[in-house]
Amino acid sequence: MGLVVQKYGGSSVADAEGIKRVAKRIVDAKKNGHQVVVVVSAMGDTTDELIDLAGQVSPIPAGREFDMLLTAGERISMALLAMAIKNLGHEAQSFTGSQAGVITDSVHNKARIIDVTPGRIRTSIDEGNIAIVAGFQGVSQEGKNITTLGRGGSDTTAVALAAALDAEVCEIYTDVDGVFTADPRVVKKARKIDWISFADMLELASSGSKVLLHRCVEYARRYNIPIHVRSSFSGLQGTWVSNESPSEQGARKVEQAIISGVAHDTSEAKITVVGVPDKPGEAAAIFRAIADAEVNIDMVVQNVSAASTGLTDISFTLPKDEGRKAIDALEKTRSAIGFDSLRYDDQIAKISLVGAGMKTNPGVTATFFEALSDSGVNIELISTSEIRISVVTRADDVNEAVRAVHTAFGLDSDTDEAVVYGGTGR
Amino acid sequence: MGLVVQKYGGSSVADAEGIKRVAKRIVDAKKNGHQVVVVVSAMGDTTDELIDLAGQVSPIPAGREFDMLLTAGERISMALLAMAIKNLGHEAQSFTGSQAGVITDSVHNKARIIDVTPGRIRTSIDEGNIAIVAGFQGVSQEGKNITTLGRGGSDTTAVALAAALDAEVCEIYTDVDGVFTADPRVVKKARKIDWISFADMLELASSGSKVLLHRCVEYARRYNIPIHVRSSFSGLQGTWVSNESPSEQGARKVEQAIISGVAHDTSEAKITVVGVPDKPGEAAAIFRAIADAEVNIDMVVQNVSAASTGLTDISFTLPKDEGRKAIDALEKTRSAIGFDSLRYDDQIAKISLVGAGMKTNPGVTATFFEALSDSGVNIELISTSEIRISVVTRADDVNEAVRAVHTAFGLDSDTDEAVVYGGTGR
Repeated sequence: MGLVVQKYGGSSVADAEGIKRVAKRIVDAKKNGHQVVVVVSAMGDTTDELIDLAGQVSPIPAGREFDMLLTAGERISMALLAMAIKNLGHEAQSFTGSQAGVITDSVHNKARIIDVTPGRIRTSIDEGNIAIVAGFQGVSQEGKNITTLGRGGSDTTAVALAAALDAEVCEIYTDVDGVFTADPRVVKKARKIDWISFADMLELASSGSKVLLHRCVEYARRYNIPIHVRSSFSGLQGTWVSNESPSEQGARKVEQAIISGVAHDTSEAKITVVGVPDKPGEAAAIFRAIADAEVNIDMVVQNVSAASTGLTDISFTLPKDEGRKAIDALEKTRSAIGFDSLRYDDQIAKISLVGAGMKTNPGVTATFFEALSDSGVNIELISTSEIRISVVTRADDVNEAVRAVHTAFGLDSDTDEAVVYGGTGR
Repeated sequence: MGLVVQKYGGSSVADAEGIKRVAKRIVDAKKNGHQVVVVVSAMGDTTDELIDLAGQVSPIPAGREFDMLLTAGERISMALLAMAIKNLGHEAQSFTGSQAGVITDSVHNKARIIDVTPGRIRTSIDEGNIAIVAGFQGVSQEGKNITTLGRGGSDTTAVALAAALDAEVCEIYTDVDGVFTADPRVVKKARKIDWISFADMLELASSGSKVLLHRCVEYARRYNIPIHVRSSFSGLQGTWVSNESPSEQGARKVEQAIISGVAHDTSEAKITVVGVPDKPGEAAAIFRAIADAEVNIDMVVQNVSAASTGLTDISFTLPKDEGRKAIDALEKTRSAIGFDSLRYDDQIAKISLVGAGMKTNPGVTATFFEALSDSGVNIELISTSEIRISVVTRADDVNEAVRAVHTAFGLDSDTDEAVVYGGTGR
């Protein structure tokens, strides 16, 4: 039996009862002969309460101090979890991100892990302890200041520790049973996925699936650490995310589906630059202006130029909360570029079909568009990768569209099996 | 203008308003040209809430994890305080005990400071920042574990930092206006003391005065750091605690009183060992048994032996919460020592009169006893040092006794000046 890294989100340790329940589960893993390292988020609403306090003393809290404040949350949960485990007769020690050797850059509030030096963790587990590590936090290489990793940071802590400790698996415990073929709140017949490749999971994560964040999966792929996403409220197997399917590894028979799932995202807006002169360099000038404003864009489509006018339209999608910045940046370049007008539309949704199988299965695109068409959903933009097709529709159509596509690709479960237990941790 | 260390207790930073008020006061000190290092306790009831949470997951929380948990409290208050100062346009950085170089032994929950290496604090203030340091916490020299200093630990942090940084003064901000000639809750006419020597303050602290703890004063005396105890709720001068009175320093005329104050303590119990054979070695055997049980005793009195029986009684006082332990230890030695019985009495109070002036003023003892006698208070035990007289009375008599003594030594103020603002910090 090897080393297991387990990560528990805030909803799993929301109160003393939750902490005791999680402690039992951790002790079970230890009893099964594993060395166990646990990464834990702050309890329930702790982080929101701390953010609220910060807002009461300062309208724009400084990054360094904000990180110092927020990291108190995991300090509380990890100490309580270690106490609860010791109360079950097993040895446990808690460690801050800094003590665990989580070294980051100096970008407060969204630091990136640049190294993990888990010497104290290794010593602790080799001495027979269960090591409890604060998620979401680290210490900067320069300046030795406390940093936080931003949204979903605890998952990244877990995967990074699993990589540094050469763990067998990184188990991400959450309040859902795993990764589903669609958002279970939208598609009642969504099925839990038994296994999904890193590649497909990365596409789902960047297409709106919120169970795992992109950078956590990317980290796991780089170091080839299998992730097991599962519920802390049940004993069920969840979703394995890895390079090879369990059947290829000879473990369990899991047939790889052509399509892994359908993701949707309503957090984006669309900007259309109308009446752009159709000559070389115009598109480049537009996207240079956007890039200089540090706006991240997603899909880009350029219409065929109208022969009569020599003008074309360029549309792109971007996060809604960067819309203002993008519009301002473009308006400043209007005379230089010479476009007619800007249209801003935040009533859109992106629906994505993800699956490595579509590479070798002709007709996937046709089936996708037919499903949308049959349910009366109009497509506004299209973009594709080797293993993903994404379309933009009206926001009002999103649930209908997701259900139609889910059914068309035979993803519907025979039962309404999806269970959602609560909020999400960080 | 030199360096000032300011310490704010939990009641001074109980909420966002308190934090903003304290931030203004800190900025004022900075504006006056001082370098400022601030030590802060956890907000209001935070520590009690964390202790309550620990109790919910484990009946006997482990020391290491308990310290990890409790230190989250100062992390929150110090980060918020730094934010509030920055919001006033001044630069501030917060530091944990570990970051501030507070090195302790490894005794969790009541660690002792063994070294302070404030390199980061020095750098921070030399760069123009106000440094905010978490009180009550440190890091163990061996094992690099987070430790806490026990009750009153933040005051000790402040004095230790003041010593290590060679500060001009250590200002202890609290919810009272200073050290009083008696507990203002008992004696309405108690007067604020303008100046008191380390020696007298040490005696008051060990006699029940709770404004400053003994080990904090001891630390200040050893490094000769003047302490200024004052209210964070008013701009008044408080009480200076130092080696030399301000008049000796030529600063202000402060006449040294014969008597500094009257302290009382109702936290002790009395054990009487009845019928001890009056021969050499018996008392030693009794106190060896007590010492082996690690019980701290305070006053000890042995009665004159009754000639008829050759038996004597030995009484001593000890903290109430160690009573059980002491009784158990003594019962085990009963046959070996050969005493008759044990009497346990926790309805006692200790009243102490403190003042270096009593050394050279005959009649202090007589006046003290007369005052008690005139108010009908019976004395059960007496103990004296060079600058202190203590008596044990019935607990019911304590308020009456303190008031009588306070009046007899001319300590009463002309007005009811004492103001108590709230709870006490740690």
